[in-house]
Amino acid sequence: MVGWPDRRFLDLVGSEHPIVQAPMAGAGGVDLCIAASVGGALGSLPCAMLSPEQVREQVAEVRARASGPLNLNFFSHDMPAGVDDSAWRALLRPYYTEYGVEPGNGGALRLPFDEQMCAVVEEVRPAAVSFHFGLPEPKLLERVKSSGAVVLGNATSVNEARWLESRGADGVIAQGFEAGGHTGRFLGSDAAEAMGLFALLPQVVDAVSVPVVAAGGIADGRGIAAALTLGASAVQLGTAYLHAPETPISAAHRSRLKDGRTLFTNLMTGGLARGLRGRLVDDLGPIRAEAPAYPLASAALAPIRAAAEAQGEFGFGPMWAGQAAPLGWALPAAELTRKLAADALAILARRA
Amino acid sequence: MVGWPDRRFLDLVGSEHPIVQAPMAGAGGVDLCIAASVGGALGSLPCAMLSPEQVREQVAEVRARASGPLNLNFFSHDMPAGVDDSAWRALLRPYYTEYGVEPGNGGALRLPFDEQMCAVVEEVRPAAVSFHFGLPEPKLLERVKSSGAVVLGNATSVNEARWLESRGADGVIAQGFEAGGHTGRFLGSDAAEAMGLFALLPQVVDAVSVPVVAAGGIADGRGIAAALTLGASAVQLGTAYLHAPETPISAAHRSRLKDGRTLFTNLMTGGLARGLRGRLVDDLGPIRAEAPAYPLASAALAPIRAAAEAQGEFGFGPMWAGQAAPLGWALPAAELTRKLAADALAILARRA
Repeated sequence: MVGWPDRRFLDLVGSEHPIVQAPMAGAGGVDLCIAASVGGALGSLPCAMLSPEQVREQVAEVRARASGPLNLNFFSHDMPAGVDDSAWRALLRPYYTEYGVEPGNGGALRLPFDEQMCAVVEEVRPAAVSFHFGLPEPKLLERVKSSGAVVLGNATSVNEARWLESRGADGVIAQGFEAGGHTGRFLGSDAAEAMGLFALLPQVVDAVSVPVVAAGGIADGRGIAAALTLGASAVQLGTAYLHAPETPISAAHRSRLKDGRTLFTNLMTGGLARGLRGRLVDDLGPIRAEAPAYPLASAALAPIRAAAEAQGEFGFGPMWAGQAAPLGWALPAAELTRKLAADALAILARRA
Repeated sequence: MVGWPDRRFLDLVGSEHPIVQAPMAGAGGVDLCIAASVGGALGSLPCAMLSPEQVREQVAEVRARASGPLNLNFFSHDMPAGVDDSAWRALLRPYYTEYGVEPGNGGALRLPFDEQMCAVVEEVRPAAVSFHFGLPEPKLLERVKSSGAVVLGNATSVNEARWLESRGADGVIAQGFEAGGHTGRFLGSDAAEAMGLFALLPQVVDAVSVPVVAAGGIADGRGIAAALTLGASAVQLGTAYLHAPETPISAAHRSRLKDGRTLFTNLMTGGLARGLRGRLVDDLGPIRAEAPAYPLASAALAPIRAAAEAQGEFGFGPMWAGQAAPLGWALPAAELTRKLAADALAILARRA
C-alpha cells in the first residue's frame, strides 16, 4: 500500500492516518474517541460541556484503552453578559404549557476555555488541543503551547485562517459550510458569505503555511482523497462517525441521517449550527431573532427538551448533521476509520 | 502526459478536455466560447437572453473560428404571469429619482426555451444543449435529442439529478452552492438546504448512471483533479473565465473578483444568484420579498442600471461570481484552458 502523500499533519500530531475524529460536544464521547483512535485516527474528546474533573476522568479512560495521540477540544467564545431572553421565553411559552414544565434554567451550558481547563491541559498533556470560535487569550494559549500540545484552530474564512496562524496556531481546520454542528465563525463575517469547502480549502491552503485540516462534507474515501488533492494535510470527520454504534445519539437522530437534508438553525443554542429538521425548527422556522446570543438559548429550552425526549420527541434538541450524512456506513468506529483510510489510499494509489 | 482517467464525458461530447466553459448569460459570449473551445474545452454560448436570429449568427461566428464541439445553453423556467411588481417599483423609487429615469420596463428578459429556439437547435445541430432550471416540455426535449444533441441538465440536489436522468438527460451538472450566477434549483427544495459541491457531487454520482459534471467553486487544476476524485466525469467552470480578457464584464466587476466575498441575492432578477456585493445589495440587503418572481425583477431595475452604469456605478446590475473567484488567473481563455487541463493532469499523474 502506498503511504500518505503528505506527512505534515501526521508528523505534527503522531496519528497513523490523517483523519481527525471530530469532537462533537453532545454527540461524541469516550467510546467514540477510543474506537477512532484504535482505528488510527486522531481521537478527540469534546470538553466544552464537561467539568475539569470530567475531562480528567475521560482522558484517563481513553488512555487506559487506546495508545494513540489524543486531541482535547474546547470552545473559546465570549460568554454574553446581561442578556434579556424574555422574548425567547415568550416564544417558547406554548411548549412549557404543552409539556407541563416550568420556564427555569436547565441543561449544561457550553462554556469557554478558562484557567481551570488550562490547568487540566497542563496536567494531562494531550498531543493536540483544538479550539472552536477563535483562540483563548494569549496568556492561556501560551500555557497550552508550553504544555507541548499542538494547537489547532478552526477557520470558516481565509481571514480567520490568517488570524489563527498569526496568533500561533500550529494547524488550521478549514471548516466548510457543509459541516454539521456549530459553524466556528468568529471574526464577524456575514453568515450569508459562508463558504463551501471546495472553494474555502484551496484558498486557506494558499493563505497559511501551517498544515490545513479539511472539515465539512467529507464522509468517505473519495472525500478524503479529494480534500488531500485540494491541498489539505488531513481531514476532520464528524458526521461520518454519527452512524457508528459508539456515538451516543438518539435512535431518532441516527435513523434520519440518510435523509440528508440539513440546514442552519440558531434555535438550539443561539449560535448557527447545521442539523436535521425537527419539531422546533419546523414550528418556528430555523432562524429566530428572539433566540439569545450563543450559547444561552439552550437554557430556556432545556426543560422542554428533557420532557419531550422522555416522550420520544427529539425535535427540541440538536440533531446535528453535516451535508454528507447520507454517505456514511454504520460500522464500528475503529473499523470505519480503517476503511476510510484504506479507501482513500486506494484512490490515491490508483492514480499510478 | 497521462490521459484523463474517465473518458465518459469526453466520448459523449467530443471535447479534448473534460472542461465545460460555463455559458454565463450576460457575462459570456462569442469570443469567450471560441477561445475556450480553441483551448480544448467544450465551449458554450449562453442563449437565454438572445433572439433566435442572434443564436444563429453567434453559432456561425463560433464555427468560423473554432472547430471544437459547441454547447448551447438555454433556460427552462416557467414565465410567471399576472405578477404585480408595484411593491418592487415602490422600493426602487428613490433610485428613479436619484438617476432621473422613468420607472418603465427595460432590458432583455431571460426567456425560456421554446418552439422557435428548438427550430434553431434542429437547424444548427450543436454537439450539446444544456438547460438551467429543469428541462423543457417532453415534446421539445425529444426534438432536441432527435437533433443529435447531447442533453445536459443542472441539478442542485440529489432529487433533481434523479429527475433529470429519468426524463432523458444524457449528463447531469451537479451545481454546488459555491457557483456564481443563478442557482438552477427547480424542484422547490428549501433554499436553506442548498448543498456545497463537496457533499453534493459524490451523492449525485452515486444516484445517477449518466456522467456527472461538477460545477461551483472550481477554478484551478487542484479543483478539477479533486472533482474527478469525487467521481465527476468533467467540470464546468464559469468564474475562472471571468478573469479572461475575452469576457465582456465591466472593469469594476473584474477588479473585484480577487475580493472573494460573494452572496446570494434575488435583487437583480427575482431569482437567487451568487455575486459580489454592490450598491443595491448594500442598500436593501441581498434578499427582498418585494422583488417579483424570476426573471421579472430585472425589468423595473433596467432604467436605473443603465443610467448608473453610464456614470460608472455598477452596483445596480449583476456582478455574478462564485466562491473560487480569487483563485483565477487573468490569462486569455485558450491559454487558461490549456493551463487548467495541464495542471489537473499533472496532479493526477503525480499520484503515480
